[in-house]
Amino acid sequence: MDHRTGLPVVGMVGAGQLARMTQQAAISLGQSLRILAASADDGAALVAADVVIGDHTCYEDLAHFAEGCDVLTWDHEHVPGEHIRRLVAAGHVALPGADALSYAQDKRAMRERLDSMGIACPAWAPVSTVDDVADFAAKHGWPVVLKAVRGGYDGRGVWIVDDAAASHAILQRAGSLLVEQHVPMVRELAAVVARSPYGQVATYPVVETVQRDGICVEVIAPAPGLHETTALAAQRTAITLATELGVVGLLAVELFDTTEGLLVNELAMRPHNSGHWTIEGARTSQFEQHLRAVLDYPLGATAMTAPVAVMANVLGGAETGPGIDERVHHLMARWPAVKLHLYGKSVRPGRKIGHVTALGDDLTAVRGAATAAAHYLSEGQHA
Amino acid sequence: MDHRTGLPVVGMVGAGQLARMTQQAAISLGQSLRILAASADDGAALVAADVVIGDHTCYEDLAHFAEGCDVLTWDHEHVPGEHIRRLVAAGHVALPGADALSYAQDKRAMRERLDSMGIACPAWAPVSTVDDVADFAAKHGWPVVLKAVRGGYDGRGVWIVDDAAASHAILQRAGSLLVEQHVPMVRELAAVVARSPYGQVATYPVVETVQRDGICVEVIAPAPGLHETTALAAQRTAITLATELGVVGLLAVELFDTTEGLLVNELAMRPHNSGHWTIEGARTSQFEQHLRAVLDYPLGATAMTAPVAVMANVLGGAETGPGIDERVHHLMARWPAVKLHLYGKSVRPGRKIGHVTALGDDLTAVRGAATAAAHYLSEGQHA
Repeated sequence: MDHRTGLPVVGMVGAGQLARMTQQAAISLGQSLRILAASADDGAALVAADVVIGDHTCYEDLAHFAEGCDVLTWDHEHVPGEHIRRLVAAGHVALPGADALSYAQDKRAMRERLDSMGIACPAWAPVSTVDDVADFAAKHGWPVVLKAVRGGYDGRGVWIVDDAAASHAILQRAGSLLVEQHVPMVRELAAVVARSPYGQVATYPVVETVQRDGICVEVIAPAPGLHETTALAAQRTAITLATELGVVGLLAVELFDTTEGLLVNELAMRPHNSGHWTIEGARTSQFEQHLRAVLDYPLGATAMTAPVAVMANVLGGAETGPGIDERVHHLMARWPAVKLHLYGKSVRPGRKIGHVTALGDDLTAVRGAATAAAHYLSEGQHA
Repeated sequence: MDHRTGLPVVGMVGAGQLARMTQQAAISLGQSLRILAASADDGAALVAADVVIGDHTCYEDLAHFAEGCDVLTWDHEHVPGEHIRRLVAAGHVALPGADALSYAQDKRAMRERLDSMGIACPAWAPVSTVDDVADFAAKHGWPVVLKAVRGGYDGRGVWIVDDAAASHAILQRAGSLLVEQHVPMVRELAAVVARSPYGQVATYPVVETVQRDGICVEVIAPAPGLHETTALAAQRTAITLATELGVVGLLAVELFDTTEGLLVNELAMRPHNSGHWTIEGARTSQFEQHLRAVLDYPLGATAMTAPVAVMANVLGGAETGPGIDERVHHLMARWPAVKLHLYGKSVRPGRKIGHVTALGDDLTAVRGAATAAAHYLSEGQHA
């Protein structure tokens, strides 16, 4: 409890853009996050008063950080479960908890659990040798997808391999791996839900996520042409998973939309790139919703504020041409209704440095504005 | 320029709720305000990384604060003009500038300037004696309104007096005063515009402001039943004033809607209570717009996101009953679509501690939700 405001203190471990945008949402609720940052220059550390520098893999740093927090939550999946359990044993509230998080941290545990729940996923198997991969491919065909059981994100830790030889180097280099069928999919979708400790759930419209080189570049809300039955099925799956896995906070379920139905790809238990559009596009943003959930506040309305919302990620691109400030000028001049979000990060090629969101009635126009604005900001020239 | 982000640094003098909400908007633009606060517990100081404690009436404090800022702007009107001029002479950029601000700081200068521009205001005169007041009332009738030339806000520095005797004590106590006709008005309106150094202007829809005891309690956007001609006239007046007075940033023009037309009541050159609804209700919030303007960025779209938006202020009320955190729970449970903004302030009777905003199609329903939610948060019980 912050004695100055009479309101609870949320501690967020990790100081990337998710923490930064959660801090922005916290301000409306009369709060300000306490943030555990690796560096004072992290995106969220630049915008909050109460920043602790520390290592999220070090229990002592976490325990020191947790003092004075009413609830701990996470900007990423990399806090070790044993540390979270120890924090809880020491009397802290940590949400989502270690058990739930294990399914976002360990893809094998997630796949096994989903299989046991009868939730459709791509065919998969644990692998440790080239023969394991070849055996799997004999059943499911080449190419196959190799995935690191732990630690992958934004296309890292995922390899599409065309033959046994190609898998050799990956098996040598990477840690624990699993293999998945390379699913012939129509597109990718995501269903974001929130769940409070009380058990209340709230769903956002199912979105289409557009990937390039394994990185999400665009999110379209709602997913165009998605049949209502399929959308409801995706939301139901997300609610079932949130409830059965005991998630508190946000759960993002990444899905493959295939000719044979939906398959669950990945889970994330935090605000998620597929929900950034909600800042302007939904009555309650995913960031506020995550805070409401971990505080056991009643959840907010998730209705869309416009018929269509499109979010496009801004990836670090050309370093030649106009600087970032000049690019912002030009973006604002050309797209006065596009909403800009910059993450306070230095530019590195391919790094997510921000996003833009456009809203409106006409999908083509809205999508065109969002993608053109994001491209301009990345590259410093029009597409 | 912040070397970590390549983006400009805005310094805001004053750390109340306007700075707090401007900081929230700055985060989207990749920035974080540098804030000059009187105390580390000020609402905006709680939510920003770069806070300097100092006195906004002390030139040395201002000069120290200004180091490293690309532009200085203001959360309130209380920075002395001579300090602003000295900062500019020392090479700093300060927007709005001292000349423009003088018309928000000095009601007599404002009235004289508006008269010279032919912009309609209530009849007025400077006064220093009871006889001056009586002479004015002989022409314009009782009651009259006495106003402090400097320093009034939220009903402070404004007195409605029914006779000469009642003015005596005020003349004794207060500093420089002026007297105004007590205008028989239909209602109060406000027109908020933004102007950039480049000269671009952007107008928000004209709103109705509802006052109680001289404090704004509710803002309805757009002003119900306002004839388009009148709305345009109000916006034109605001644009003329912004341009002629050289305002950079936001200008809020408070107006009396009378049977004989619009009269200008007050000017404010900063984000204004009558524009809080824009956070959710307009494509670009007044806080982002103020930042864009003082940075000479192109201004953002001001279209409304819903047909009706109503903002209701939350005033510090009953200290008995549920605490603030419990009140927030109940508010969220009952009004899941109402948006809450708390300012990180301790509760004092009558103090603005936050606001709520409701959006929708139906004025009665939207207004009912906003005012009921604000009442509940103030009093801890339903109306």
